[in-house]
Amino acid sequence: MADYDNDNIFARILRGELPAVKVYEDDHTLAFMDIFPHSVGHTLVIPKSPARNLLDADPEALCHVIRTTQKVARAVKRALNADGIRIMQLNEAPAGQEVFHLHFHVIPVYEGVGLRRSTEMASAEELEETAERIRSALT
Amino acid sequence: MADYDNDNIFARILRGELPAVKVYEDDHTLAFMDIFPHSVGHTLVIPKSPARNLLDADPEALCHVIRTTQKVARAVKRALNADGIRIMQLNEAPAGQEVFHLHFHVIPVYEGVGLRRSTEMASAEELEETAERIRSALT
Repeated sequence: MADYDNDNIFARILRGELPAVKVYEDDHTLAFMDIFPHSVGHTLVIPKSPARNLLDADPEALCHVIRTTQKVARAVKRALNADGIRIMQLNEAPAGQEVFHLHFHVIPVYEGVGLRRSTEMASAEELEETAERIRSALT
Repeated sequence: MADYDNDNIFARILRGELPAVKVYEDDHTLAFMDIFPHSVGHTLVIPKSPARNLLDADPEALCHVIRTTQKVARAVKRALNADGIRIMQLNEAPAGQEVFHLHFHVIPVYEGVGLRRSTEMASAEELEETAERIRSALT
């Protein structure tokens, strides 16, 4: 497995070098909106410590990330009245991993609404409005 | 959200009332082969404590489950020479959840090999042979 690349885009978001529409942050984790959402409310949860993916992650960091993933999943479901939540976590390019910093996808599912193909970028307005609803449900 | 059903099939596997091809077990978690695999080596990881899914799970149980998921993912990748690993965890029926006991799917991906549609049951021989390779990689 390749080494961790300090210049991947999530590392740059963590350093504040790139923007992100954040919904939650604590000492160990950060959650922010996916800009290519599969559905309205698609959120990503990442550890602040470096990890390429699940395979090389520190077990303690994994604990923090899955707990934040739970918090965010609950908030997304409540905030957006989702009918279900899919959690997805991809390891290595053949599995679909595109950014090589560990991340969990929180993807709300709405009955009767198909998932988007995620090749279309969401507007800043849509992301900010959705994030605000999720933030409210988190507090 | 509905209550936990003590008679779901994973609860029955945990009580030894139904068989499963196990690959790993500790005080808090159990991992066994999915009998409707998306790919060769598709494994499920569950907590021993009752939880309907991620949304109602005890945070401590989540830690145990994600750590075992990591162990199993590493072992599956090494044992079967997989090119990647997809982790999937579904919450509520609209998201695709079929058994209402929290479970993480560990799905190996092999380059050039599409995922199965998982409507065909794997043979007991295939599952046992695959499980034995995963068990060896776990020790």
